[in-house]
Amino acid sequence: MLTAAICGDVFTSPPVDSILAGIRAVTGPKGCLLVVTNYTGDRLNFGLAAEQAKTEGFQIETVIVGDDCALPPPRGIAGRRGLAGTILVHKVAGAAAAAGLSLAEVAAEAKHASEMVGTMGVALSACALPGQVTSDRLGPEKMELGLGVHGEPGAAVVDIQPVEVVVSHVLQQILSPETNYVPITRGNSVVLMVNGLGGTPLMELLIAAGKAVPKLQLEFGLAVDRVYTGSFMTSLDMAGFSISIMKADQSILERLDAPTKAPSWPVGTAGNRPPAKIPVPLPSQATKSEESLSRPQALSQQGKILEAAIEAAATVVINLKDSLNEWDGKVGDGDCGSTMCRGATAILEDMKNYYPLNDAAETVSEIGSSIRRVMGGTSGIIYNLLCKAAYAELKANGQPETTPKHWSEALKSSISAVSKYGGATAGYRTMLDALIPASKILEEKLSAGEDPITAFILSAEAATAGAESTIHMQAQAGRSSYVSAEILASIPDPGAMAVAAWYSAAARAVKEKSQGLGSDGLLC
Amino acid sequence: MLTAAICGDVFTSPPVDSILAGIRAVTGPKGCLLVVTNYTGDRLNFGLAAEQAKTEGFQIETVIVGDDCALPPPRGIAGRRGLAGTILVHKVAGAAAAAGLSLAEVAAEAKHASEMVGTMGVALSACALPGQVTSDRLGPEKMELGLGVHGEPGAAVVDIQPVEVVVSHVLQQILSPETNYVPITRGNSVVLMVNGLGGTPLMELLIAAGKAVPKLQLEFGLAVDRVYTGSFMTSLDMAGFSISIMKADQSILERLDAPTKAPSWPVGTAGNRPPAKIPVPLPSQATKSEESLSRPQALSQQGKILEAAIEAAATVVINLKDSLNEWDGKVGDGDCGSTMCRGATAILEDMKNYYPLNDAAETVSEIGSSIRRVMGGTSGIIYNLLCKAAYAELKANGQPETTPKHWSEALKSSISAVSKYGGATAGYRTMLDALIPASKILEEKLSAGEDPITAFILSAEAATAGAESTIHMQAQAGRSSYVSAEILASIPDPGAMAVAAWYSAAARAVKEKSQGLGSDGLLC
Repeated sequence: MLTAAICGDVFTSPPVDSILAGIRAVTGPKGCLLVVTNYTGDRLNFGLAAEQAKTEGFQIETVIVGDDCALPPPRGIAGRRGLAGTILVHKVAGAAAAAGLSLAEVAAEAKHASEMVGTMGVALSACALPGQVTSDRLGPEKMELGLGVHGEPGAAVVDIQPVEVVVSHVLQQILSPETNYVPITRGNSVVLMVNGLGGTPLMELLIAAGKAVPKLQLEFGLAVDRVYTGSFMTSLDMAGFSISIMKADQSILERLDAPTKAPSWPVGTAGNRPPAKIPVPLPSQATKSEESLSRPQALSQQGKILEAAIEAAATVVINLKDSLNEWDGKVGDGDCGSTMCRGATAILEDMKNYYPLNDAAETVSEIGSSIRRVMGGTSGIIYNLLCKAAYAELKANGQPETTPKHWSEALKSSISAVSKYGGATAGYRTMLDALIPASKILEEKLSAGEDPITAFILSAEAATAGAESTIHMQAQAGRSSYVSAEILASIPDPGAMAVAAWYSAAARAVKEKSQGLGSDGLLC
Repeated sequence: MLTAAICGDVFTSPPVDSILAGIRAVTGPKGCLLVVTNYTGDRLNFGLAAEQAKTEGFQIETVIVGDDCALPPPRGIAGRRGLAGTILVHKVAGAAAAAGLSLAEVAAEAKHASEMVGTMGVALSACALPGQVTSDRLGPEKMELGLGVHGEPGAAVVDIQPVEVVVSHVLQQILSPETNYVPITRGNSVVLMVNGLGGTPLMELLIAAGKAVPKLQLEFGLAVDRVYTGSFMTSLDMAGFSISIMKADQSILERLDAPTKAPSWPVGTAGNRPPAKIPVPLPSQATKSEESLSRPQALSQQGKILEAAIEAAATVVINLKDSLNEWDGKVGDGDCGSTMCRGATAILEDMKNYYPLNDAAETVSEIGSSIRRVMGGTSGIIYNLLCKAAYAELKANGQPETTPKHWSEALKSSISAVSKYGGATAGYRTMLDALIPASKILEEKLSAGEDPITAFILSAEAATAGAESTIHMQAQAGRSSYVSAEILASIPDPGAMAVAAWYSAAARAVKEKSQGLGSDGLLC
C-alpha cells in the first residue's frame, strides 16, 4: 500500500527534513507519489519537501485528500480534512504502482479515488495525549459528531444515541445531495469502510457496519460491493468510529482487491469472498424409530432386570435427598440432593412411558435425556455425559444382547468421558472416587471368571468404600475446592455417596430380580 | 483457521444443542476437531456435544487448551484457563487440517501446540457488559494482573506501572522455572503474541511488543521467530493485553505461516518478512561545491543588480515591520511584521557571506534557506516553498545567464507551488493577491516585447494594486478566515502588502542599478 510513512510529533505534521529523508530513502527511477491529508501543516511541509526533492532530481507527484463531510461546504478549502478515506486512496495508489503504472498514471488513479470518497466521524471520548491530562470536554452520555483525527473538537456535541441513529445521521451527511461532496447517486455501487478511532473494539465496529450495509442498500439504493471494518486511521485511544463511502468502479475494485502485505489491511476481504459456510456431506443421522422410543408391550428377561435396577437406583436417590443436601450444604451449595432427586423422579416417570427397556443401550441414552431435561447445572451435564458415553460404547458392540463385559466396558467409557471433560480423576473428591474403584473391581472379577452377579455386588462394595474414602480427600475440582480442609475432613463427597447409593441399589436389585426370575446368567 | 465458532451468551459457554448444530453443519467424512478453552462450562458442554455427535456417527476429537500462567500451579486442573494461546492452537490445527492430515494427526498437532504455549493477561479497566452498569472494581491508577477473558477478577490488583515493568513481570511469570508451565529454556526459539483485550489501540500493543522482544532475546536468551500483535481474543471493550509465548519448532512455524483467510490473522506476518526497507538506487545528489556557496570575489553585472534588488527588498520589509504587525494584529496574530523582519535581516546578513550572487538560481535557493532557518511557522514554509519552486524552474533552464523570461517563468512556478500546497488562489485574501497580478502583467508585457525594466515596474504596480484590493476581500484561507467581514473591510492583507512592498522595492532597485551600470538589458 505504502512504501514509506513519515511520522511527525503527535498530531503535528512531520517536518520537511523527515519527509525529504523518506523520499530519498525509497524513491526509485519511476518516482514517488506523496499522498497528503488536507491539513495546512501537512500540505506545506510535504509541498516544500516535494519541491526540494524535485530540485534533487526526483520525480514527485502529490495528491491531497480531503474527504471530510462533517461541515457544510466551506468558503475556502480549509474545511475538508483528510480522514480515513485516505486509506482507501493509499490502497488504490499502492496497487496501481504495484501493477507497474507510470507515476502520472498512479497519481491520476489516486486523485480519482480521492474525489470519489467521503467520510464522517463520531467520537464517544476524547483521546489521551501522552503526558497530558485527558480532556473531559465530552461529558458522560455525550458524543461528538464530525471530528478530525488530531483530537480537534468536532462539529457538534450531542446526546449519545443508539448506533442505528448515529449511523443514519452519518450516512445522510456523507451522501447529502446539498453538499454533493461525493458524486454518488441511487443505483451506484459503493465501498464501505467502518474505521475505529483507536479504542473501539472490532465487535462494536462490526455492529456499526451491520447497521450501515442494509441502510445503504435499502434507504439509499446503493450496491455495497466491499466492506472494510477495522482500525485503519486512528486517533490514539479515542473511542468512536468513522464511516467512509467510496463510489466503486471496476478499476477501483481491482485496486482494492489486489493483494497487499500491509499488516492491518483485512485479508479476508480480498475480492468477492467464498461463502462462509462450505457445504459438506452429512453422515446419515441415526433417527430413532417411534417404536424404539416407547415402552415395549412385553419385557424380555433382561428388560425386566433392567427395569428393576433402574427403579431401585432411582428410589434410593430419592430417599437419600436430605442426607445429600446436608452434606452438600457443608461443602458446596446444598442442592445436590434436590438436584439428584429431580433427576431420579423424572427417570421413574419417563421409564413408565418411554424407555425401550428391552434395548439396554437405548434405555441408557433415554436416562441421559431425562436427566438433561430436568437436572441442569454441572451435575446434569456430567450425568448426561456419563449416559451418552455408556450408550456409545454399548451401541458400538452392535449385538442385540448386552453382556456383563459390555456393561463393564460402558462403565469404563463413562468414567473416561467424565474425567476428560470434567477434568477430574481418582482422588479429586468427586463421583469418580466411587465409579473408578467400582469399574476396576467389576473388570477384575469378570476377567477372573467370577459369577457376574457376585462381581457386580463386589463392585458395589468397592464403590461404597471409595465414596466413604472421600472424607479424607482434599477437593481438587468443583465447588468443594474452595472449602477449607478442616470442614471437608468430616464430610464425604455427596456426589460420590450418591453414586455409591444408586450403584449398590442397582446391584442388589439385579441380584434379587435375577434370582426371582430363576436366571443364573443375569443380563445376558 | 476454524470452520465454525460456536457462540454462547456473553461470558457463558454455548449450550450443547448449539455446539451439536455446529458440528452437524460443518463436519465432513474426515471428522471434526473441537478446540475447547479450559473452563468447566465449556469442557462439559462441548464434551457432551462431542459424545452425542459420536453416537450420530461423526468422528470427533477434542483438545482442551489451558494456557493461563497467572496462578501458581493449582491443586487440580481448574486453575489454568484457556486464553489467547488458544488462537495459536487454532492456527496450527487449521493449517494441519488444510494440509490434508487425518483427524488424529490434526488433534495431535493441536495438543502439542497447546502444551507449548503460556499466556498471562493484564487489565487496565473492567469491561462493559451490555445492559449492565460497568464495574468500577479497578480504581483509577490501578491494574489487574492475571485476568481471564470473561470479566472475572484477576489474580491481583496492583498500582499501575510503566509498560516495561508490566511486560517484564508477565514474561517472568510465563517463563518461570518454578511453575514450569511451558517447556521453554534458554536458547529455544519462540513465537510471541501480544493480544489486545478489546479496547486497547494497536499502537499500545505494538509498544508492549516492542518491549517484549528485546527482553525475550537479551534477558531470557530466546530467539523470537514470529511476533503477532493485534486483538485476537478479546473481552468486550476491556483495556489491557495478554502476552502469549509459544515454543516454536519447524512444524509449528510452518503451520503458523500457512496462508489463511481469517480476517484478523495479521497478513504481514506470514513467514519471514522481506526487509521493510527496499534498497533503491538514489539519483546522484546535487552536492553544492564550496565555491558556489560563498560570495564570489567579483560580482558580474547581473550579480550586482541582483544584490541591489535583494538589499532593497529586504530593507523595505524591515522598515515596514510595525505597519505589518499593526495590520496583522487586527486580522491575525500580530506577528507578520516581526516574522518577515527576522527573515529579511537574516537574508541581508547571509548575503554578505554566503550568497553566490553571480548564480541567480542558487542565490534564490539560499534565500529560501535563510528564511527556513529563522522564520518558522506557516509564512516561513510558504516563502521557502516559493524560493524552492523558483529555484527549480531557474535551474531547469540550464543556462548560465538568467533572462527576464526565466524570471517570469520562475514567478509562475512559485505561485503555482504556493497555491497548490497552501490551498489558496486569487481572491482568497493572501499574498497570492499581490503575486498573481504581478506575474500576469510581467508575462504579458514581456510577451508584448516591452522593455524588461519597464515590464518589471509595471508588474510591481500591479502587485501593489492587487495587495490593496485585499481590503475588499473576505478571507478564505489562513487565520484571517476566522475574522468577521466588518473588521476585514478596513485592513489590507498584511502578507499581500509585504509582497507588494518587497517586489516594488526590488523593481525600483533593478531599474536604478541598471541605469547606474549603464546597462540597458538588465538581468541578461
